Amino acid sequence: METVSENRSFGGVQSVYKHASSTCGCDMTFAVYMPPQAANRPVPLLWYLSGLTCTHENAMTKGGFQEHAAKHGIAVVFPDTSPRGEGVANDEAYDLGQGAGFYVNATRDPWKPHFQMYDYITKELRDLIVSELNVQDRHGITGHSMGGHGALTLAMRNPEMYDSLSAFAPIAHPTRSDWGRKQLSAYLGDDEGCWAAHDSTLLLEEHGWKGDILVDQGASDQFLDLLKPEALAAAIAKRRQPATFRMQEGYDHSYFFVNSFAGDHVAWHAERLT
Amino acid sequence: METVSENRSFGGVQSVYKHASSTCGCDMTFAVYMPPQAANRPVPLLWYLSGLTCTHENAMTKGGFQEHAAKHGIAVVFPDTSPRGEGVANDEAYDLGQGAGFYVNATRDPWKPHFQMYDYITKELRDLIVSELNVQDRHGITGHSMGGHGALTLAMRNPEMYDSLSAFAPIAHPTRSDWGRKQLSAYLGDDEGCWAAHDSTLLLEEHGWKGDILVDQGASDQFLDLLKPEALAAAIAKRRQPATFRMQEGYDHSYFFVNSFAGDHVAWHAERLT
Repeated sequence: METVSENRSFGGVQSVYKHASSTCGCDMTFAVYMPPQAANRPVPLLWYLSGLTCTHENAMTKGGFQEHAAKHGIAVVFPDTSPRGEGVANDEAYDLGQGAGFYVNATRDPWKPHFQMYDYITKELRDLIVSELNVQDRHGITGHSMGGHGALTLAMRNPEMYDSLSAFAPIAHPTRSDWGRKQLSAYLGDDEGCWAAHDSTLLLEEHGWKGDILVDQGASDQFLDLLKPEALAAAIAKRRQPATFRMQEGYDHSYFFVNSFAGDHVAWHAERLT
Repeated sequence: METVSENRSFGGVQSVYKHASSTCGCDMTFAVYMPPQAANRPVPLLWYLSGLTCTHENAMTKGGFQEHAAKHGIAVVFPDTSPRGEGVANDEAYDLGQGAGFYVNATRDPWKPHFQMYDYITKELRDLIVSELNVQDRHGITGHSMGGHGALTLAMRNPEMYDSLSAFAPIAHPTRSDWGRKQLSAYLGDDEGCWAAHDSTLLLEEHGWKGDILVDQGASDQFLDLLKPEALAAAIAKRRQPATFRMQEGYDHSYFFVNSFAGDHVAWHAERLT
């Protein structure tokens, strides 16, 4: 992998790397924050999956995670949200194609050749980071909006791969939302039976999660109708899933919401990973 | 003034406002973070002046000040760095004209009609905020790069107006730097006698500052030759000015540097303002 940039941050290093991804069939860019503790020992790794329209950069610059990761001694990786580049399919809409990979493996053209974000995150990028950086093979996962959907679904489908789980304002019930039906239909086809494996509410109802889950949701989020937190909250209650679900008064969907609670989430993961 | 946006942040509110500035002869945009304590009582105000190319937005989204301001109960204002808009003079260079006001009152055309940032910051915007928001008339000032220059020069020229002072990687000796000579010449004319009032090193040598000063400078800053921290450090030592000047190993000129030390600076100001 090639180093794009390195910046000292809170005593550690915020890096951006580029590598040729065989899974996505294109160059992929990602960011990793390594805390100061990583100079002396391998540290656990927190995955932060970003939302629609984001790259690796948004949460890296606006999420405020570095301060807390340095305090707790954990690394944080910020992957991109989709394959990109010339020759990669795209759509004019902000919520389909590049910037909107939805953390699934597309089975339909024109998306299938590159849009393999589920395998990219759970396999290729994971293997690359564990082999190249001073991290333990011990992983927490979180994310915001589409990335919260990614964190919840990847963890619930692969409980052996993740040891801690949280989400910020996740797209919680995509099979019943315009943030979901459009994309799942495009990437996976119209057989809705294939969609359930990518719906946090349905996965939680059926499988639950081995540990406890932290979910923060802004009560003044402008996308509440699309996120459907009420479906996830009901599933948590119905299954008696150990979880902390917080409706945060006055907060919206922005990074001002994410960074206000970044410290709580990093502490949550650190407690379970270290 | 007109509200452009409001976002809940760390229990307080991050707002962006627009107003018709008589000083600059155009609409001006600025951001203010009001901490949760401001709901109950007036709070002190910290001015954060930004650097070349920045608007009100960069430090607001990437500086990480809100968390610390909420903890200490102080408001933070992020002004724009110049007048803007059609009809406002500009230059193709990134370091002259819009985005590069240098916190002076221009006396030369084409800059004179709008580029009055010194008066805008010390008078018009100050009066507006004190009258419109729940803040005490008690002010600290800091800034980054060109904004560090602004903070140091405005405070040393107006000690009665500011009660605490710090800077991040300031342009410390503009009369002897390409970050300075070009702009002071354009805005103030070629008589270098008029420039000294806008040079932190010269002001410090001649007048000093009534209190103590905190300056952070990244030792791996890519602009050390332009910033000239050695001139400021020498002036501090020569005058026996109470100050803490920190060369921070490994840090560059980016917001990763600024937000790594934002907490220290907010605490510094809070201790002197509250």
